[in-house]
Amino acid sequence: MAVMGHVSLVGAGPGDPGLLTRTAIARLRAADFVLYDALVDERILKYARRAQRFFVGKRAGRHAMTQDAIQALMIRAARRGRRVVRLKGGDPFVFGRGGEEALALQQAGIPYDVVPGISSAIAAPASAGIPVTHRGVASAFLVVSGHEEDAFTSAIGQLQPNGVTLVVLMGLGRSAAIACRLIDRGWSRGTPAAVILDASRPQQQVWRGTLKQLSADAVDLDAGGAGTIVIGDVVAVGLAAADVGRTFQVRRTRA
Amino acid sequence: MAVMGHVSLVGAGPGDPGLLTRTAIARLRAADFVLYDALVDERILKYARRAQRFFVGKRAGRHAMTQDAIQALMIRAARRGRRVVRLKGGDPFVFGRGGEEALALQQAGIPYDVVPGISSAIAAPASAGIPVTHRGVASAFLVVSGHEEDAFTSAIGQLQPNGVTLVVLMGLGRSAAIACRLIDRGWSRGTPAAVILDASRPQQQVWRGTLKQLSADAVDLDAGGAGTIVIGDVVAVGLAAADVGRTFQVRRTRA
Repeated sequence: MAVMGHVSLVGAGPGDPGLLTRTAIARLRAADFVLYDALVDERILKYARRAQRFFVGKRAGRHAMTQDAIQALMIRAARRGRRVVRLKGGDPFVFGRGGEEALALQQAGIPYDVVPGISSAIAAPASAGIPVTHRGVASAFLVVSGHEEDAFTSAIGQLQPNGVTLVVLMGLGRSAAIACRLIDRGWSRGTPAAVILDASRPQQQVWRGTLKQLSADAVDLDAGGAGTIVIGDVVAVGLAAADVGRTFQVRRTRA
Repeated sequence: MAVMGHVSLVGAGPGDPGLLTRTAIARLRAADFVLYDALVDERILKYARRAQRFFVGKRAGRHAMTQDAIQALMIRAARRGRRVVRLKGGDPFVFGRGGEEALALQQAGIPYDVVPGISSAIAAPASAGIPVTHRGVASAFLVVSGHEEDAFTSAIGQLQPNGVTLVVLMGLGRSAAIACRLIDRGWSRGTPAAVILDASRPQQQVWRGTLKQLSADAVDLDAGGAGTIVIGDVVAVGLAAADVGRTFQVRRTRA
């Protein structure tokens, strides 16, 4: 009888391989089988030298594999004794469907662990010199998916920008609609806002402006890549883009 | 003339040395001078073999050093050509006063960088098997400091638990007051809640219950250590405590 394998749900962080954790690197090095998403950097996959690698993310708007198929593949591989790494951009439990995958593994009786990763929700603003909290400016931050109108609207509820930083992930294609929704809810048009593309990667780009400019689709960054939107007074705290362990190409406009 | 040094504001993560990033380890190894807080694990300090180490955190409720004195010390050391690491529990920009320190360094003309760390806001719930977001359950999470009544009340504003997970850091001593405040604001008494102590460390403890139990001070964990409170339906998603790269001692009561 075959020995039971193991699945690790591993957070790959925002992109820079230097932001991988020690445990994430150990899991990749030991892996036989890696299932990875579109947001995972090629330089990170190189740690999984001995593994078969499968792309299971979204490309050109289409999923390479359904969520059910990904889960079935992980379970099958573990039952064959393979050490499986399910590698996700950022953190597995921040909009990564990691909870669903962990539940499927638990229900199938597959041993698994979760290795947290650096989330873009915090690190993308940081790489643009924006602290999500700052004494006297913001004592809380709300992280929300911008992908679906209803979920976004429900999540922000009656939230007022009273010292709360709003971080929107997966909202790049809807940034103008998101800004309009906030203005409708009474957020000031002059609230500082920023968009960070490809945070922590050599091609990182940063835009800074106001909620009004965001609502007018004034973000002039090259499309593509993962984007994070930050809205709140912390954007104007006055730090230059921080060097998160490497040199970025930062392009700034207006502000 | 002395060569100018450098300061790195480094996130040490929740405690487990396996959750340090590769860049954090590199900065510690190269450091001449490390200033560290109370939440930083002894096993992590061992990476800074060649460095002088200074404890600058809070012990028995008293600060070993004021914020101004910490900033002055970093700047002085960098001007003497030292490679300084300012090591903080979790992430430097999540309630870590990292923004203030970065501003002070920028104003003093000291070269610095920021190395994000795994935040307990996400990793502490994960280590108890609680995903901060989960499809159909929570599409957003609010991270707030529980330390000060006014800041907490202002931050939660009129937020309703409509698919939003509430993560409270530094609120352990005020957990009953926090739960009462939420119930006052209309949150259901039956809302699932959890408290995680010393997340990712061998001595990790987890309590699960409801907002009502939290308001009645029913959390029966041993005091001390860093604590994270999670409130919302994600607490009841049904995952067992995840093994975040090691074996935890998890104690569960009720729920």
